[in-house]
Amino acid sequence: MAPKKKGVSILGATGSIGTSAIDVIRNNKEHFFVTALAAKSSWEVLLPLVIEFEPSIVVLTDVAAASALESNLPQSQKCRVMSGNKALDLAATADNTDITLCACSGAIGLKSTVAAIKAGIDIALANKEVLVAGGKYVTELVKKHKVKLLPVDSEHSAIFQAISGRSEDVSKIILTASGGPFYGKSCEDLKRVTLKDALKHPNWSMGHKITIDSATLMNKGLEVIEAHWLFSVDYDNIDVVVHQQSIIHSLVEMKDTSVIAQLGLPDMRLPIQYALSWPERFVSKQYPSLDLIKIGTMTFLEPDLKAFPALRLAYESGKAGKSFSTVLNSSNEIAVEAFVSKKISFTAISHVVEEVLNKHIPVDVDSLDVIIETDEWARNCAHDIIDSM
Amino acid sequence: MAPKKKGVSILGATGSIGTSAIDVIRNNKEHFFVTALAAKSSWEVLLPLVIEFEPSIVVLTDVAAASALESNLPQSQKCRVMSGNKALDLAATADNTDITLCACSGAIGLKSTVAAIKAGIDIALANKEVLVAGGKYVTELVKKHKVKLLPVDSEHSAIFQAISGRSEDVSKIILTASGGPFYGKSCEDLKRVTLKDALKHPNWSMGHKITIDSATLMNKGLEVIEAHWLFSVDYDNIDVVVHQQSIIHSLVEMKDTSVIAQLGLPDMRLPIQYALSWPERFVSKQYPSLDLIKIGTMTFLEPDLKAFPALRLAYESGKAGKSFSTVLNSSNEIAVEAFVSKKISFTAISHVVEEVLNKHIPVDVDSLDVIIETDEWARNCAHDIIDSM
Repeated sequence: MAPKKKGVSILGATGSIGTSAIDVIRNNKEHFFVTALAAKSSWEVLLPLVIEFEPSIVVLTDVAAASALESNLPQSQKCRVMSGNKALDLAATADNTDITLCACSGAIGLKSTVAAIKAGIDIALANKEVLVAGGKYVTELVKKHKVKLLPVDSEHSAIFQAISGRSEDVSKIILTASGGPFYGKSCEDLKRVTLKDALKHPNWSMGHKITIDSATLMNKGLEVIEAHWLFSVDYDNIDVVVHQQSIIHSLVEMKDTSVIAQLGLPDMRLPIQYALSWPERFVSKQYPSLDLIKIGTMTFLEPDLKAFPALRLAYESGKAGKSFSTVLNSSNEIAVEAFVSKKISFTAISHVVEEVLNKHIPVDVDSLDVIIETDEWARNCAHDIIDSM
Repeated sequence: MAPKKKGVSILGATGSIGTSAIDVIRNNKEHFFVTALAAKSSWEVLLPLVIEFEPSIVVLTDVAAASALESNLPQSQKCRVMSGNKALDLAATADNTDITLCACSGAIGLKSTVAAIKAGIDIALANKEVLVAGGKYVTELVKKHKVKLLPVDSEHSAIFQAISGRSEDVSKIILTASGGPFYGKSCEDLKRVTLKDALKHPNWSMGHKITIDSATLMNKGLEVIEAHWLFSVDYDNIDVVVHQQSIIHSLVEMKDTSVIAQLGLPDMRLPIQYALSWPERFVSKQYPSLDLIKIGTMTFLEPDLKAFPALRLAYESGKAGKSFSTVLNSSNEIAVEAFVSKKISFTAISHVVEEVLNKHIPVDVDSLDVIIETDEWARNCAHDIIDSM
């Protein structure tokens, strides 16, 4: 008997993660089919994918892009094309979906992730902001609806693989960080870095938002918070180690001091495939094998919390609890946008975030409304601070 | 309800592994008790352990040593003291034993390991020669008697931990090797090394036999064969990588190319404890945590099969199957003894082994008698070759 194919809905299908996910599904057509594809506006990129994978629902949040896609689809193509943010929820919960890959960057993915969880659909989570903004609410919802929350971030996939179901044995999580393009630079050096410098990530090819977050180390900070919620580990037991080669994707110390790590070449297809294939693994002849002798040397260095205050802010927000990490996430999104549009300097990103956090009056994160309100407040506050700079 | 304590029989209680095992049990008296202690002749070392752990059987294979122990035991001590190789089987199968730690070095442990397996007792295997000499016979016996064979060698424990029960997903095993004290030396250099040089292991403090085996890389060769039998992996899918820091104890590549590794400071107590505590892990405040930043750098190098032919011989013996690896193991024991007593040079160790292998007419390893006969033949053959040198 052939095993049942898994239906996959992909939110953020034209981004860096989405493109890799498409490749994974293309390589494993005997295991997966696509139920829905959603993107922001890149209809030209989406069009051939719709023809190839025949999803029942396609969403472009941009209205004009949705129209363009619809008018360019072959008449024979049976598929609902929709637009607007609300349509994302329909894509997330499309018929026959076994797992929804949440790979929209930023807080926009939260609502559709929640919709999928409420529909009892497992989540492959590539959007770390979902847990940073709504960790308590989302993890409780996951428990209530008995769905699986499978990490896609290479670090969290590494931790998930290292734990291998024995979460009661975990004593510490060690997240590795590439250190970004600016590791070793002083606070003074960082004042002079440009947008072009910040977009040069040493190991991973990713979208702008996450590349800038990697340069400030905010990305690692968001991952610390994500790890806290995914694996129920205290912040004091989550360490960050700079490992510039990005070969060890993260490590877990067990309560007997044994350390288990997951390693691989930097290729997002592997953690994506594992999130989709779990609890099984599928043979992957397409992915290159890790050759340790070719790697030759691995190094481990301390992160510099003084030059990279974003990581410190993330730990502080996480430990402070309540809505602080929601604010961290939203204010960081606005500050990064301002840096990308050259309104503020690189070092100002963390200053903006810290100022917003200082102004915040925390609330309990116990509903989607609270998260959305807090998110709006933090964005407005960040805009105000940026405008006054 | 307090969990049931495990009864542990320790064969080789005064050696390097035995001493670490005693420490593990001392640190975990709420989990373990000692049913039997066995050693060769070190009765003075055994005496306080008998008083502390109150085993029901104590064996010293040396008759005089057994008498000395017996006459020095307090009269109140209730314990059978026995001597001779056959008494080892009684220690291996002592009443209330849940797991027998086989840590006698060399082929002597094979018989008592077989006795324990036949008695339905789980085995914590530190004596790699058991599987090298009798792999096919022993693994079939293990299946037949439905006992667990738990590896104690740091490399095999690492692989066992990395696999974490998902043996169907394994595509490759990568054994790490410290490289021994002579890594980087040429064939010419090695002709001039002394016994003293060979006994300086860079990372581990162990007995003479295994230290010399580490210097020739025969130890890694024996581990390749042990890994083949323990994890049912083809020799073509077992790689050896020189990792001089001995922090990554070994790695496993899964069929989707994900690599899982186990890491730790070089401390045998951890793999011993895991073999005894499996499937659980016990909290170990006594063992130092791995600090990657303190480690700083890890390197990975290719083993030199030309300068270290023992590793090549092990692969060849393993692949040739039948009784070749029995011969490899026995002839190596004799050759190492000859080197330790300064009868032959360091490079002659492998020459002796290769000559014995060349003279061997292979047989099926399907009984203890065949293994014992082959072992005797190989020892005699090795002695003859050494005498004629």
